[in-house]
Order: sequence, then C-alpha cells, then structure tokens
Amino acid sequence: MKARVTIMLKDGVLDPQGEAIRHALGGLGFQSVSGVRQGKVIELDLAAGDAEAARAEVARMCEGLLANTVIEKYAVEIV
Amino acid sequence: MKARVTIMLKDGVLDPQGEAIRHALGGLGFQSVSGVRQGKVIELDLAAGDAEAARAEVARMCEGLLANTVIEKYAVEIV
Repeated sequence: MKARVTIMLKDGVLDPQGEAIRHALGGLGFQSVSGVRQGKVIELDLAAGDAEAARAEVARMCEGLLANTVIEKYAVEIV
Repeated sequence: MKARVTIMLKDGVLDPQGEAIRHALGGLGFQSVSGVRQGKVIELDLAAGDAEAARAEVARMCEGLLANTVIEKYAVEIV
C-alpha cells in the first residue's frame, strides 16, 4: 500500500523559498503568479493491508518525525 | 486560480533523502515502511481564468525553472 504525505508551512508562516520562486518566475516573464508556497511530499511504501490502519500509522510518523507541527501542516492520502 | 505542482525524482534516480527518512522511521519502530521517496510540492496562485491555459503555463514554468527534467518528473493539478 502506498501513502502520500504533503507537508506545507502553516498559513501564517513566512515562506522565503516560495517567495524566491515567485521572484524568479517574475524574472522569467511569468507575471501572472501572485503567490507561491513550497512544501514537501513524501511517498511511503507500507506493508499495512488496511487503509485506515495505514492512515493512522502515517499520521503517527508525521507527528513523530516527518513534520514540524509547530510551523507545518500535513495531509495524508492513501493511494 | 490555484495550481499545485508535484516534483519527484524519476524512478531510476537514487533518492538519498528518502532513504535517510526510511532509515530514521525504522529507528523509531516503523518497520513496516519498505520504501520512501521525497519530492517537492509547489502551490501557485495564478491570475489565469482558464484551467487549460493555466495548466499549459504551469507546464512551461516547470520546464523552464521549477523542475530539472533530466532527473525529475512533475505533475500539474489545477485545484
């Protein structure tokens, strides 16, 4: 079973990397881009057979290692 | 209009960052994880009104700046 975790900075948190991308896109002529946020995506191959159990286990991984929940939010998808 | 770009290393390309995450998860007791791949996600706020035009413009941004298409693959979603 595969799980995909998307980790983004929370909405109020400044994202200098996203801002740098927006600036670079503007310099390349993509003026229509008004905002950019960059995050991480982590794809996991899991042995778990049950989707709900897998989702709960991945949430524990996020809380314990993958995400910094002070400044980041995460979303888990089972794919 | 919002677009989300997911950028992952191509399948044959070694992903040491993913491997480090897998190792760390194993050390925390998550033995059921057999493989990890890490990538980037970029969320863009666009002025374009038409979904197809937006998708084409974001694909041009990926080819020109966001992804290294020699070793990375990208997927564009309009959300």
